[in-house]
Amino acid sequence: MHNSHFSFVRVDWMMANFKGHALPGSCFLLLGLCWSVMYPLRHCWRRHQPKARQKLPLFFNRIDLIEGTLMIFFAFVGIMAEQFVPDGPHAHLYNRETQSWVKLMNWQHSTMYLFFSIAGVVKVLTMSPLPVPLGLDRLALSLAFFIEGLLFYFHVHMRPPLDTHIHSMLFVPVFGGAAITLLEVFMRDNIVLELLRTSMTILQGSWFFQIGFVLYPLNGVQWDLQAHDNTMFITMCFCWHLAVALLIVGINYWMGWCCVQRCSGRGSDIEIMMRKTSSSKKALLEESDEE
Amino acid sequence: MHNSHFSFVRVDWMMANFKGHALPGSCFLLLGLCWSVMYPLRHCWRRHQPKARQKLPLFFNRIDLIEGTLMIFFAFVGIMAEQFVPDGPHAHLYNRETQSWVKLMNWQHSTMYLFFSIAGVVKVLTMSPLPVPLGLDRLALSLAFFIEGLLFYFHVHMRPPLDTHIHSMLFVPVFGGAAITLLEVFMRDNIVLELLRTSMTILQGSWFFQIGFVLYPLNGVQWDLQAHDNTMFITMCFCWHLAVALLIVGINYWMGWCCVQRCSGRGSDIEIMMRKTSSSKKALLEESDEE
Amino acid sequence: MHNSHFSFVRVDWMMANFKGHALPGSCFLLLGLCWSVMYPLRHCWRRHQPKARQKLPLFFNRIDLIEGTLMIFFAFVGIMAEQFVPDGPHAHLYNRETQSWVKLMNWQHSTMYLFFSIAGVVKVLTMSPLPVPLGLDRLALSLAFFIEGLLFYFHVHMRPPLDTHIHSMLFVPVFGGAAITLLEVFMRDNIVLELLRTSMTILQGSWFFQIGFVLYPLNGVQWDLQAHDNTMFITMCFCWHLAVALLIVGINYWMGWCCVQRCSGRGSDIEIMMRKTSSSKKALLEESDEE
Amino acid sequence: MHNSHFSFVRVDWMMANFKGHALPGSCFLLLGLCWSVMYPLRHCWRRHQPKARQKLPLFFNRIDLIEGTLMIFFAFVGIMAEQFVPDGPHAHLYNRETQSWVKLMNWQHSTMYLFFSIAGVVKVLTMSPLPVPLGLDRLALSLAFFIEGLLFYFHVHMRPPLDTHIHSMLFVPVFGGAAITLLEVFMRDNIVLELLRTSMTILQGSWFFQIGFVLYPLNGVQWDLQAHDNTMFITMCFCWHLAVALLIVGINYWMGWCCVQRCSGRGSDIEIMMRKTSSSKKALLEESDEE
Repeated sequence: MHNSHFSFVRVDWMMANFKGHALPGSCFLLLGLCWSVMYPLRHCWRRHQPKARQKLPLFFNRIDLIEGTLMIFFAFVGIMAEQFVPDGPHAHLYNRETQSWVKLMNWQHSTMYLFFSIAGVVKVLTMSPLPVPLGLDRLALSLAFFIEGLLFYFHVHMRPPLDTHIHSMLFVPVFGGAAITLLEVFMRDNIVLELLRTSMTILQGSWFFQIGFVLYPLNGVQWDLQAHDNTMFITMCFCWHLAVALLIVGINYWMGWCCVQRCSGRGSDIEIMMRKTSSSKKALLEESDEE
Repeated sequence: MHNSHFSFVRVDWMMANFKGHALPGSCFLLLGLCWSVMYPLRHCWRRHQPKARQKLPLFFNRIDLIEGTLMIFFAFVGIMAEQFVPDGPHAHLYNRETQSWVKLMNWQHSTMYLFFSIAGVVKVLTMSPLPVPLGLDRLALSLAFFIEGLLFYFHVHMRPPLDTHIHSMLFVPVFGGAAITLLEVFMRDNIVLELLRTSMTILQGSWFFQIGFVLYPLNGVQWDLQAHDNTMFITMCFCWHLAVALLIVGINYWMGWCCVQRCSGRGSDIEIMMRKTSSSKKALLEESDEE
Repeated sequence: MHNSHFSFVRVDWMMANFKGHALPGSCFLLLGLCWSVMYPLRHCWRRHQPKARQKLPLFFNRIDLIEGTLMIFFAFVGIMAEQFVPDGPHAHLYNRETQSWVKLMNWQHSTMYLFFSIAGVVKVLTMSPLPVPLGLDRLALSLAFFIEGLLFYFHVHMRPPLDTHIHSMLFVPVFGGAAITLLEVFMRDNIVLELLRTSMTILQGSWFFQIGFVLYPLNGVQWDLQAHDNTMFITMCFCWHLAVALLIVGINYWMGWCCVQRCSGRGSDIEIMMRKTSSSKKALLEESDEE
Repeated sequence: MHNSHFSFVRVDWMMANFKGHALPGSCFLLLGLCWSVMYPLRHCWRRHQPKARQKLPLFFNRIDLIEGTLMIFFAFVGIMAEQFVPDGPHAHLYNRETQSWVKLMNWQHSTMYLFFSIAGVVKVLTMSPLPVPLGLDRLALSLAFFIEGLLFYFHVHMRPPLDTHIHSMLFVPVFGGAAITLLEVFMRDNIVLELLRTSMTILQGSWFFQIGFVLYPLNGVQWDLQAHDNTMFITMCFCWHLAVALLIVGINYWMGWCCVQRCSGRGSDIEIMMRKTSSSKKALLEESDEE
């Protein structure tokens, strides 16, 4: 940053930022969408079978393993990309000649990916026969979200109002996700928490794209970063992103349920029975709620 | 807002605000009062019958359904009203000619209502034979309160001290309500939490009216929005609103109990028995507390 | 406050403040000391008897009743004192002639006492044969602490640094007490929480006296309200108050245990047995911890 | 501080600070490393034996006792060191001649040690045959962390940006540690919480050293306390410390497991059995998660 060619630095900085928004955006969106398919499927499968945790197919254990492996892989790719892009730090941290740090922004992003790779490693270890304490995978994921939020928190100072505001909105899904995942350490396999975490992850992914679109618009028309009206719109836009994330999770849940109904042999019988006894079932549900 | 006729804009703005305070105030007050009747009735009914969750009348299930339907209806009316009042945005978000956003305040209120309508939809779905996970209705309601608080949080900047203060007091019932409802996801049918949520909702409704009365006084005498004394009075007034909300919930609880006593055939016998054995019952209660 | 005789107003203000610190200080200290005797006694009594919740003497139920009654009484006295002292508002809220609020500080203190009287009423109702939901007494107490903290929060603006700081320290016992009491709604009769609440209440009482001593020193030597050193000392002094509060609770707990040992007939036998089997008992405790 | 020889005071201040960073750093690091060996060993031992809490060796009870005693000893040494170093306050709090407080920084550190000594005393008492309520030792430790954080919070004002920032990072392990330890009051012997607390304590210890290295560099090259780049590096560095702390805890956990496997007679048999049945075991684990 101690460069005299300001215009060049500016472009470089923008590229770093655009990459830094689209890449994690895609990763989180992908992770969230995977979860939004996996968790409802698993939950519906369990709920579908009368007393049937025995029959949970091996496939679901494999999915956890694949999820962990992919998390490590993407985090590794992220670290490498941040370090070895042409304008990256190439694993140099301090430049003794200019007495300055080298590309700290890329290093911070690498650090963020590092913690997600730790979460992936713990996830894979949990699946292994090693005696990893139950819930440690959720704790590692919660820490990864928390560290991401911490790095962001000290990242948004000294910027124009709209830039600060649009980055601040990320705190809701990031710290919210960290808190929800921490709760999951103690309340494992709670479908409500899992769906909420999924929504928060999708929201985070789509919001990274929104930040990219606002700060580096594709049509080239710059947003006024000082206007209060733009700030108001962004606040509202964030809520719409959340609504869409909830809708996606809802649709995937419904599709998961249909899928389990179809695949399972006894599905159709049960469904007919359910339609018939809906009113008495409601009273029954009512009772079971209270126990 | 980029209008040259300032005096006209001012009036328009005030109308938007008065409507924006009285309308949600009535909605929340109505919702809170409904709950303050329903929850005590249901709780007392359950407690009254010896081992009697079987006999919970169908009526209570219907009430949940009606509550959800009404929530959707009112939220829909709210969205329509905010959009299609004469000075509303009429579903236009961006004016390409003036290069500005159209009536963002109305759009924000619409967004708020949108999340309450989502909460209503989830409530209705929970009552349906669809396999909605238990507690999702509370989560949706919690999110609706949270989004309301988030929109308010970025709504109160750059105003006179008293205006900021009186709006800030809303954070207590709004974020408090969101937190309590989130707790209810995990502690379903806990009467203490339900009564607290009810009180917070009534408080919120009555406080919206208080804001309307202070910022747009009916007798036309404007409040001094800079005076520290007024700020002190408003803080205290908020506590009184809470006290009144607690009193209303308390009275409705007592009336609900009396009602259940009367309606039930065995009510009188049990009451006599209770009066007689009050001292031994106290010791008994004492014991059961500790288990 | 819109009085031209500034010197007179100053004295009056100081008196109001001194009274406002010594009176609640005594009340909280008394309440905390009562609890520090009652809770250990009750806990030790229960623990002492082999399977003995049946034999909890009626006396402990009475104590709850007395506590509630005293809380109502003191809160009533507090309200009356704040209203009808010579320089109080005498139940006048608004002076139409000067167009100003009358003695808002006294009104705020009355409001604070009002919520403690509500907590007292709920406590008494819980002891009555009425069907008050379990845990409502703790919720009312938690709300009373919370309202006290809320009033204080908007009370400490625009003062010299030391004054603001010494009042801010009160937030720890007040909001801490509110949070602990809220936890007790769900974890009733947890001795650790009860002792912590007791310590917080004693700390609050003693800190009110400390505020009085610092802002209105008895020896007449005014403290420098701007000096950073004084602020540092006050922070440290607060920690010492907490240490002393913990010590008092610890001593009372120990005395309660001794008392129960003496009073109970089987006390001595059990004690001998315990001393003998201490090492095996430790291993036993160790095991029961994990269940 | 009211000394005219400014250059002398400066050196003295720096010494006080360096000591104040290296000494607690070593203590916390030692405490954290002890825990990182003890907790995994105890957990693996328990998990290893089929239904075997009976056989938990006496050694583990002794370790708790030793831990408590060492905590008291180190806290006592800390208090004495802070008070009676050549430039310490020598137990004088107020100098009547200069009308100023004596070495408040040392007094604050003494206060911090005092609360850790209280935590040690409660730990020892819990091991004794006295009827200390279960969980009180964790509460005392949580309070010690909280008081440490509180003292720090009012300690970091009015310093250069980097100095404030590097001290602020301590809030994460300190208040995080306090929150985790508070949770442990209610969830005793939860290995995930214990490992997290251990990591936070190691992080705190290593971060104290980092503060020392940055503010009082050994090679004599002063850091620029105003540069934003340095602040960014420190944020990232903090994350790396956390990653290393997690790694240390992970390695110690793995070594603890190996150690228990070797020492126990039946270890090898079980391991062989586990390797064989790993896939069926995974499905089994899967099931038990849901109960």
